[in-house]
Amino acid sequence: MNNFVFQNPTKIFFGKDQVQNVGTETAKYGKTVLVVTGGGSVKRSGLFDRVIDLLNKEGLTIHELSGVEPNPRLSTVKKGIEICKKENVDIVLAVGGGSVLDAAKGICAGAKYDGDVWDFYAKKATIQDALPLGTVLTLAATGSEMNGNSVVTNWETKEKIGVGSPYLYPKFSILDPTYTFTVPKDQTVYGIVDIMAHVFEQYFSHTPNTPLQDQISESILRTVIEQAPIVIEKPDDYDARANILLAGTMALNGLINMGKQTDWATHAMEHEVSAIYDIPHGGGLAIIFPNWMKYVYEENIEKFKQYAIRVWGVTTEGKTDQEIAHEGIEKTREFFNSIGAPATFGDYNIGDENIELMAKKATRGGTIGNFKKLTEDDVKNILTMCL
Amino acid sequence: MNNFVFQNPTKIFFGKDQVQNVGTETAKYGKTVLVVTGGGSVKRSGLFDRVIDLLNKEGLTIHELSGVEPNPRLSTVKKGIEICKKENVDIVLAVGGGSVLDAAKGICAGAKYDGDVWDFYAKKATIQDALPLGTVLTLAATGSEMNGNSVVTNWETKEKIGVGSPYLYPKFSILDPTYTFTVPKDQTVYGIVDIMAHVFEQYFSHTPNTPLQDQISESILRTVIEQAPIVIEKPDDYDARANILLAGTMALNGLINMGKQTDWATHAMEHEVSAIYDIPHGGGLAIIFPNWMKYVYEENIEKFKQYAIRVWGVTTEGKTDQEIAHEGIEKTREFFNSIGAPATFGDYNIGDENIELMAKKATRGGTIGNFKKLTEDDVKNILTMCL
Repeated sequence: MNNFVFQNPTKIFFGKDQVQNVGTETAKYGKTVLVVTGGGSVKRSGLFDRVIDLLNKEGLTIHELSGVEPNPRLSTVKKGIEICKKENVDIVLAVGGGSVLDAAKGICAGAKYDGDVWDFYAKKATIQDALPLGTVLTLAATGSEMNGNSVVTNWETKEKIGVGSPYLYPKFSILDPTYTFTVPKDQTVYGIVDIMAHVFEQYFSHTPNTPLQDQISESILRTVIEQAPIVIEKPDDYDARANILLAGTMALNGLINMGKQTDWATHAMEHEVSAIYDIPHGGGLAIIFPNWMKYVYEENIEKFKQYAIRVWGVTTEGKTDQEIAHEGIEKTREFFNSIGAPATFGDYNIGDENIELMAKKATRGGTIGNFKKLTEDDVKNILTMCL
Repeated sequence: MNNFVFQNPTKIFFGKDQVQNVGTETAKYGKTVLVVTGGGSVKRSGLFDRVIDLLNKEGLTIHELSGVEPNPRLSTVKKGIEICKKENVDIVLAVGGGSVLDAAKGICAGAKYDGDVWDFYAKKATIQDALPLGTVLTLAATGSEMNGNSVVTNWETKEKIGVGSPYLYPKFSILDPTYTFTVPKDQTVYGIVDIMAHVFEQYFSHTPNTPLQDQISESILRTVIEQAPIVIEKPDDYDARANILLAGTMALNGLINMGKQTDWATHAMEHEVSAIYDIPHGGGLAIIFPNWMKYVYEENIEKFKQYAIRVWGVTTEGKTDQEIAHEGIEKTREFFNSIGAPATFGDYNIGDENIELMAKKATRGGTIGNFKKLTEDDVKNILTMCL
């Protein structure tokens, strides 16, 4: 285990009708609030009206930014920043899924910065301050509700980049599983893939002696694998939705990477794909991850054996290490297929036309990942396996 | 899963020589610090001098309270409060094990209160404010380094009671596994039992549908069970000490009881025993817990089967539910014995002379626990099984 520092101050309100706290919690941080939303589902469901009503009850001045895209765009973030600066917004409240939350984090950072907010994503500047953020989550996926990460797409440069900062942890997040009942099947599936992918990025590591972190990771994976078919079959199963929502939050809140070197190459590759093709993040991950696994597993076959045995219950008798590892990877692929996730770039009509470009862009800062440090050629090979 | 609110703001510095941060972290909270220590081991080891040196480098004014007892006493807490009030202390720094931390928390709460600090423990008053607390931990056991709980013994009334408050979470805690190398074998064992007992109190619950919380609990238990023989055999094994230290922190920081009803009857019973006999908390728990398990397991035999199978690898073929559950309980007893924990009150020369009194005191506020609500008679029965 490596040395580490851990702090996660986000206050989580989990469960039915926890939104009742949104007014009082928001009011702790000021008088003027910017409410950020996405494509309209929170308005159709009535959640938006409920939130506005509760904010009004506290006498808050409310501004609104709606229409945040999946793969949220820099241009939208800038619109939000403009409102914050003009209206002296005290706190941002994101109501929606991970994209809405990520855009809101960009707004919070940009509102307290004189330069171009993209500087933070392009690593030309470090976040030194941010407006406080509250969130009402409607999708189990990104973990953004309990971490300091934000991923935004710059459509002009076709770059999708993440930034992390202690200033970006939400002050509070309201997680009500019932809000995820109406998430369409494909979005539910992408969320499930995203949660599992977050665990993979942190689980597959060469850092020795992390038995507890590994077992907690495996617990999250097994929970998601067990609960996923239930929510797909029965979208309004409260318990299954709750278990997946909690798993998603725990998958990327700093818990499972304590003292571990992590990877994140697959996310870097996926970001290049969705920056060009605007495909759903979870869909891209479902295609790339099993291929990454096949490409890298020999770097630490013991870890992949552990994964196969503990997560998928693969039996070992009469099998070589290679066979055991492969069986775990195959089961990952089969699981993604079974829940209806895409398996190849062909499912999105993506051909090989941009593979060279994507490989070049993914490695513009050098190799990516740690489990195996991937060169431009490695990325090209993995993306080609995805065709 | 029940609704829940979770927030744990403590900043953890984990690993070798993380104490180097103690000066700068402490200085964030003021100019005058009260350093609280226990029986002298931190002075013999040189840790105390290192801490003082780092505090001096930040130009802090340092006051000291040493001699905090195992089962820390109200009288000692009051001494600390007096120093804080007289010297206008800004922050308390606890250097030691769980008892030192618990006493320091009492000091932090009492320093901001005009009445008798015991009011908080006796539930006559609620903590509304507290001095900030930093900790440098030297023992894996209580989890006090990352929670808002404090247990103190009032020797006049022979009461050992705990209090919890959001104000009592340490601002930061420094967890260096090397400081636990010199913990004597018996203290190491008591710590291991305490960690496992904390998990038991939260794991054995009737709350349905908590698969992730259960599996994380099992992960902590398996980690401790695997690593315990290593640290007992080789007290300076960094990796094993680190794994146990992290497990102890995760066992009682709010992670595994999210949305679950918890029990805590065994702790309540043990507090009565150590309030009279001043035995080590972990020793008392090692004696009582397997007997509590035997007494209550039929309330939810599925949970005890799950425990036996997943934590102890008990096989199920050809066995009744009862037999499977019993085997898990027996393995718990055998494990405690194998690491040298006491098995009966006789090991501490405790007879049946105070069982009636302890049962009466344990249930003075009504039944205790939730897995089975224990009456005075139930407590008497369980304590009698411990003889």
